[in-house]
Amino acid sequence: MRHQPPAVHALVFDVFGTVVDWRGSIIRELRKLGRAKRLTVNWAAFADAWRAGYRPAMARVRRGELPWSTIDALHRVILDEVLKQFGVDGLSEQELQQLNRVWHRLRPWPDARASLQRLKRTHVIATLSNGNLALLTDLAKFGRLPWDCILSAELFRHYKPDPEVYLGAAALLDVAPQHLMMVAAHKDDLHAAQSCGLRTAFVRRPLEFGPSAHPDLKDEAAFNINADDFSDLARQLAAGR
Amino acid sequence: MRHQPPAVHALVFDVFGTVVDWRGSIIRELRKLGRAKRLTVNWAAFADAWRAGYRPAMARVRRGELPWSTIDALHRVILDEVLKQFGVDGLSEQELQQLNRVWHRLRPWPDARASLQRLKRTHVIATLSNGNLALLTDLAKFGRLPWDCILSAELFRHYKPDPEVYLGAAALLDVAPQHLMMVAAHKDDLHAAQSCGLRTAFVRRPLEFGPSAHPDLKDEAAFNINADDFSDLARQLAAGR
Repeated sequence: MRHQPPAVHALVFDVFGTVVDWRGSIIRELRKLGRAKRLTVNWAAFADAWRAGYRPAMARVRRGELPWSTIDALHRVILDEVLKQFGVDGLSEQELQQLNRVWHRLRPWPDARASLQRLKRTHVIATLSNGNLALLTDLAKFGRLPWDCILSAELFRHYKPDPEVYLGAAALLDVAPQHLMMVAAHKDDLHAAQSCGLRTAFVRRPLEFGPSAHPDLKDEAAFNINADDFSDLARQLAAGR
Repeated sequence: MRHQPPAVHALVFDVFGTVVDWRGSIIRELRKLGRAKRLTVNWAAFADAWRAGYRPAMARVRRGELPWSTIDALHRVILDEVLKQFGVDGLSEQELQQLNRVWHRLRPWPDARASLQRLKRTHVIATLSNGNLALLTDLAKFGRLPWDCILSAELFRHYKPDPEVYLGAAALLDVAPQHLMMVAAHKDDLHAAQSCGLRTAFVRRPLEFGPSAHPDLKDEAAFNINADDFSDLARQLAAGR
């Protein structure tokens, strides 16, 4: 007799890199700004530096060195540093605010929207991102992503990979952790979810960090699903039902 | 020169009675159960008694006499009392749980879905209900309601009309209270929102409490909008832009 794994009632998704192509979207907007302002800057390196500041900033919040701050606020602190580092000045406060909100206008990966629509028919689908709720709501509107609800680290005042985020999501969705599946392109996120008893789906996003990066894309037997994209995830979930 | 009111960026909606017809939906399910179980009960009176227990139960939570409880849990406590009151017994625990979840399967008023779809094109639209997040998520799925995000009293561990709910919603949506509009069929909800600086839209739902009830449907000049339904609300918002 085959062992039946517990049914997956709800899926929660990491967003930056897993659902949306933050890097491609940001480089595109930065290049447009550069042309308008006649700035010569390596915008891909600029985008990477902006993103690279994100983890250390969150880690300071997680260690209690900084009070709770939204990702919008952290992005702005990092942006101000990166602008200095790349020698960009002369942007007005309004332009800086507009630029910082580029994180609210990130394009979904091409397979995301249609596959989420399909998954929504059989599961509750929600975000579970370190992005703040207003940011995630704007992203959903911008990319027409059909979430059933928006869950954010902000609701728990803890950033992933703190367990409060994964367990808080299960409590709000009123499902036991073993009926909740975390979907992410990042293995550390999945390992943390797994420690909280959630099921896990790894989705490969080989281009998240650009064409010359070499992210870890290997299958891991410890994950319940290893998928090439959301369409493959939907197919594997349907086969397992 | 005409005084321009502040722009409305986001709309938050009361749900029970404002978006969904709780009474009609619940009577329909109770009658079906009654036929299956050969029970002769005044199901309309049963539904009204169930709903009538809701405010006193929430008031006990608001006064701190009960610890924080979700609406699902409160509905169950009230259901057990109302079943006794109406002399209904013989339901299994599974049937009771299924019955209590009728609050997750309430039909939207006929004008709701299409008008929300329209409002979503110009505004962020979200719930702001005392219903818990899982309940509101199920209702949205059941009624195909196109919310941008689901906000619930549960996120703030305070029930409306506590100010924490209205101000908490503004903070999560990252809008100033004067750019946020509360939409409700209940004037006390709107008065409380107004005290927090939110804008207000009263929507008449003459049938919420059944055909023989006489709810207060009068326009109030203090509200920014008084509307006959969501379609009228959408029209008035578009005219004011």
